[in-house]
Amino acid sequence: MHENPSRVEAFSDGVFAIAITLLILEIRVPHGAGNLWAGLLALWPSYIAFLLSFVVILIMWVNHHELLRMVRAVNYPFLFANGFLLLTVTFIPFPTAVVAANLDTPDAQTAVAFYCGTFVANALLWNLLFATMVRGGLLRPEVSTETLATVRRTYYAGILVYVLAMVLTFVRPALGLILNGALCIVWIRLGYRSESSSARQF
Amino acid sequence: MHENPSRVEAFSDGVFAIAITLLILEIRVPHGAGNLWAGLLALWPSYIAFLLSFVVILIMWVNHHELLRMVRAVNYPFLFANGFLLLTVTFIPFPTAVVAANLDTPDAQTAVAFYCGTFVANALLWNLLFATMVRGGLLRPEVSTETLATVRRTYYAGILVYVLAMVLTFVRPALGLILNGALCIVWIRLGYRSESSSARQF
Amino acid sequence: MHENPSRVEAFSDGVFAIAITLLILEIRVPHGAGNLWAGLLALWPSYIAFLLSFVVILIMWVNHHELLRMVRAVNYPFLFANGFLLLTVTFIPFPTAVVAANLDTPDAQTAVAFYCGTFVANALLWNLLFATMVRGGLLRPEVSTETLATVRRTYYAGILVYVLAMVLTFVRPALGLILNGALCIVWIRLGYRSESSSARQF
Amino acid sequence: MHENPSRVEAFSDGVFAIAITLLILEIRVPHGAGNLWAGLLALWPSYIAFLLSFVVILIMWVNHHELLRMVRAVNYPFLFANGFLLLTVTFIPFPTAVVAANLDTPDAQTAVAFYCGTFVANALLWNLLFATMVRGGLLRPEVSTETLATVRRTYYAGILVYVLAMVLTFVRPALGLILNGALCIVWIRLGYRSESSSARQF
Repeated sequence: MHENPSRVEAFSDGVFAIAITLLILEIRVPHGAGNLWAGLLALWPSYIAFLLSFVVILIMWVNHHELLRMVRAVNYPFLFANGFLLLTVTFIPFPTAVVAANLDTPDAQTAVAFYCGTFVANALLWNLLFATMVRGGLLRPEVSTETLATVRRTYYAGILVYVLAMVLTFVRPALGLILNGALCIVWIRLGYRSESSSARQF
Repeated sequence: MHENPSRVEAFSDGVFAIAITLLILEIRVPHGAGNLWAGLLALWPSYIAFLLSFVVILIMWVNHHELLRMVRAVNYPFLFANGFLLLTVTFIPFPTAVVAANLDTPDAQTAVAFYCGTFVANALLWNLLFATMVRGGLLRPEVSTETLATVRRTYYAGILVYVLAMVLTFVRPALGLILNGALCIVWIRLGYRSESSSARQF
Repeated sequence: MHENPSRVEAFSDGVFAIAITLLILEIRVPHGAGNLWAGLLALWPSYIAFLLSFVVILIMWVNHHELLRMVRAVNYPFLFANGFLLLTVTFIPFPTAVVAANLDTPDAQTAVAFYCGTFVANALLWNLLFATMVRGGLLRPEVSTETLATVRRTYYAGILVYVLAMVLTFVRPALGLILNGALCIVWIRLGYRSESSSARQF
Repeated sequence: MHENPSRVEAFSDGVFAIAITLLILEIRVPHGAGNLWAGLLALWPSYIAFLLSFVVILIMWVNHHELLRMVRAVNYPFLFANGFLLLTVTFIPFPTAVVAANLDTPDAQTAVAFYCGTFVANALLWNLLFATMVRGGLLRPEVSTETLATVRRTYYAGILVYVLAMVLTFVRPALGLILNGALCIVWIRLGYRSESSSARQF
């Protein structure tokens, strides 16, 4: 428990920034002379996958800062829990590319299930990171029990909803993606709400 | 409205730095043994696209700092408006590659229109970010009404000129690109002017 | 011996963050319509290589900070020893891709030996960096002789174990990789132990 | 002339760190089952190009900091001169890949000349950046005339030597690369020397 979280934050920010920017490399220039508009339009699965993954990583970045603001120090278990969380973040460009390549094929179901599965793993690691913070006594004393309970509930819900998205995928792939997109809106709204009430809670 | 803009600035700087450096990955080594000079020269559309996008991102980075210097705090709408602005920045390597691959083909028109369209979207998001700053009361008190009016006018002009560039592309693709390049020079000159008069305005 | 190590740390952190995030670019979307699950499963060598290299770079990043915390200033030999260490770090995505592409082929032995060889070179450069710190008088006065001896012993052991992993590869490729993975667990445990005893040593 | 150079430094550091790490992406995994050692050995031009470009960018990064330490403020011309310098830095992975792909072909001469040409452009921009600093009155008052003269002489020499390397390439491609490598050693040694005498000069 030997240092403040600023360097972990800087390193994590770097990884978030790079992962979010690498997403574009998975969109390849269409080939097929004479009909570029058709080629660009045919990339719609890539645009959807890019947009969704971009917004998800952006929300995670915001959330990561919210979490690290509660921390007064870091220890080894925290460093590695955070590292494995970042592993799932850097992994995101791959399932994104898998969805982009398969959304308009019979493999769409598999692709979206794999995509949602990544976020199940990611949600588990947010819970692990939070557990590491609580158990290691890394939290600032001014963080209220109420705030802790809210975060814990939200993180549990995260696992459930992503598992649900994965299940929905087997009903219809589009549903899985739509739930993912809907989740983004929920996270953003939760953020706004927690912000307006943060004066009371912190 | 809970924190100062330094971490947003650091994250945005990271995204700008990565997006500007990734541009080079879209230039592929020419194949065709025995005549490398010809192969390197035939890449002229790639060089033009690389140069133009590099300068545009560089100017955006400078402008982003100018804008964030006016801000005393950030809130959630700001974080997400900034995030979507960065989305269009990380997207730039893709239309750049599209232009590079098609500038010397019959698809040049489509490619350049797509490229300009990206900057129309980007210009809209600069306006959104600025509106978020003004409406959220995030501006430093020392920012004068005159400065605000200048920024607003410039940002509106940005949308118009990029729409114009897109239209010009349908007259002649080269015109769209030339207007883009000319815009860069205008932005740089505006920067110089605002600098010399900043003592009065701030 | 003219400055504090903060900018070297920031630059090194950037390189670690980028190298760890680039690893995912080496996993390519499987092609072969109608059987995406099979295609994703067939990428198991890529997942193993990705996971192993991610954890190794993460541990190196943690270790790099531990080392730089002992330093009170940097000089030219330090800058270049650190630079060459980073060279081996940025090189890691390549042997990782070689392992990923060959783990389920008759070339597995060669691929894993090449992978382990990279870490032998890397271990040698950690020793060089440490020697540069000691010889240049760059260490903080509060670093105890005992701590120095521990670091030196651990770094020597690093070379030996990676050479051993390389040798084991020629017995059976999987053994080399397993030793690499085991090493990760040892490094993490050593970290924990050094942490709990750091109050006494520093 | 409105701000201190720290944000330019951070942005430039990001670009240097990314450019140096992207170099590895240009080394592709060899294909050709059953003889991986031969495939890895056949990549020797890639290793040479990677090593050379890595060391060159590392030296540039060190040098960039040396230069920015002399600066007390930045202005618009400085921002854009620095931007164009970074343009040539982010460009380096491309000529590096060209050399790697052609060093063992009849096109070696063209490839190495193109590589050296990039450094001629780069050397010109270091001179431009320095001129911008001097003319804009951006230098710290404690920078001695002697130091300025040394920097100016070294930068002029840089242009000349890279032009010479380019010319030598037409005698024999290997000579151009060897001169580039030799230059690295000279830059490193100059650094050491300037360091030991910096107490007197600053």
